[in-house]
Amino acid sequence: MIGIFDSGVGGMTVANAIEKLLPENRLIYFGDLARSPYGSKSSETIIKYAIQNTEFLLDRGAKVIVIACNSAASVVSTVLKEKFDMPIFEVITPAVEQAVASTDNGRIGVIGTRATVRSNIYQAMIHAASPDTEVFSKACPLFVPLVEEGWLNRQETKMIVRRYLHSLKLNRIDTLILGCTHYPLLKNLIVKRMGRGLKQVVDSSESVARELKNFIDSTPDLVLSQKGAGENLYYVSDRTEAASMIAEKIFGRQINLEKIEL
Amino acid sequence: MIGIFDSGVGGMTVANAIEKLLPENRLIYFGDLARSPYGSKSSETIIKYAIQNTEFLLDRGAKVIVIACNSAASVVSTVLKEKFDMPIFEVITPAVEQAVASTDNGRIGVIGTRATVRSNIYQAMIHAASPDTEVFSKACPLFVPLVEEGWLNRQETKMIVRRYLHSLKLNRIDTLILGCTHYPLLKNLIVKRMGRGLKQVVDSSESVARELKNFIDSTPDLVLSQKGAGENLYYVSDRTEAASMIAEKIFGRQINLEKIEL
Repeated sequence: MIGIFDSGVGGMTVANAIEKLLPENRLIYFGDLARSPYGSKSSETIIKYAIQNTEFLLDRGAKVIVIACNSAASVVSTVLKEKFDMPIFEVITPAVEQAVASTDNGRIGVIGTRATVRSNIYQAMIHAASPDTEVFSKACPLFVPLVEEGWLNRQETKMIVRRYLHSLKLNRIDTLILGCTHYPLLKNLIVKRMGRGLKQVVDSSESVARELKNFIDSTPDLVLSQKGAGENLYYVSDRTEAASMIAEKIFGRQINLEKIEL
Repeated sequence: MIGIFDSGVGGMTVANAIEKLLPENRLIYFGDLARSPYGSKSSETIIKYAIQNTEFLLDRGAKVIVIACNSAASVVSTVLKEKFDMPIFEVITPAVEQAVASTDNGRIGVIGTRATVRSNIYQAMIHAASPDTEVFSKACPLFVPLVEEGWLNRQETKMIVRRYLHSLKLNRIDTLILGCTHYPLLKNLIVKRMGRGLKQVVDSSESVARELKNFIDSTPDLVLSQKGAGENLYYVSDRTEAASMIAEKIFGRQINLEKIEL
């Protein structure tokens, strides 16, 4: 099974992208709603949580792990890859590859939570791949609560998008990485705000789904699932109405969220 | 010692009010930043956290507990009072008393997180004290992230205040309870938005501090502290820069936040 974890429901944009690209494979998802969000927490705390989440998914039979949370990926992917001997995917690497391949003017923007931006991981990885590319980052801490409030197209949301993206627009980026799995839900507003200078929006959910598909296609020995062995499973550490609503919005169908304690 | 807990730093408005009214007494504060916020989580999860927080404060010598979080108080105060044999104060009861005494037209508004509003606790307690009073509630989930972003006087914040309070203004309330310990930081905007119809804003931080002072003044046997026995203590389950900044804003001085694991 493909194990996916996130601090909450944002990572379901990743699960949804993987379901679409890899419909034959079983997924097990864990959303850590009882301790959500991660983006405003310290690296030390995020690492502790990510290890517990990974251990839970392994216990339940995951053979591959996807860190579907930029805040977690930005601080824990090295630690997890050292600690667990299995393929570990995360949303940052494939998004960086796609952005570097896409930019024409060598100016890439990155938006994310405070934890992601503070980690400087996108900048470091983009520079490693393409030293001359300029990277402009901006933390957008209000985007997650706006999405969770369901204000996807309100005037207030537009103004906040306008304010947060102001500097990136001045920086004349032509490629923008949505460095948080909640942000695809605001993609239309973001694209509109950035205007015609923006050529490409990189949605890390889709990038990691494609990378995972390539890996699975090229690794025939990997037994991820027995066909017909069951449904995809969606676990959460807390269950709320708001979470069920966002899940439905992302998947376009009702999702049964099963509550477990870590 | 007076033990105070909150999901994060909002409850420091309560600690600050208590420090001012009861400068002779030692405080021990616990802010559960590693699992913050509580207001979007389920009752079951909030109860589990509140019990752990209370046990931590008892271990450290607290003789009185103050639940400095409306989301927690709204769902756990009965459970905690049954489980722990000690005086337990919370931010709701004194705010209700003050609001009922203050209203002239019998129309009280309450704003808070989703968890607080969903619990209906303010409505139930106001009706128990004054059956004819009408209560109008409104969840304002974006206020906490706006305060934590430091956007206390921005145009976007004013618009969101305007939208959330629209129905309460139409309801012609003359008394408004700030049912979340973050909200005093938005008090000026809220008062301005509500206009002249509003006679009284009840800040639950100040109400509980006054109630606690009355209790301590009338209970001479209660040994809360030995004078000069030490400083007030501020513990958190996670430490971030944003939290230190808000703490400084609330107390008007730097606060040493000591990180502990529950």
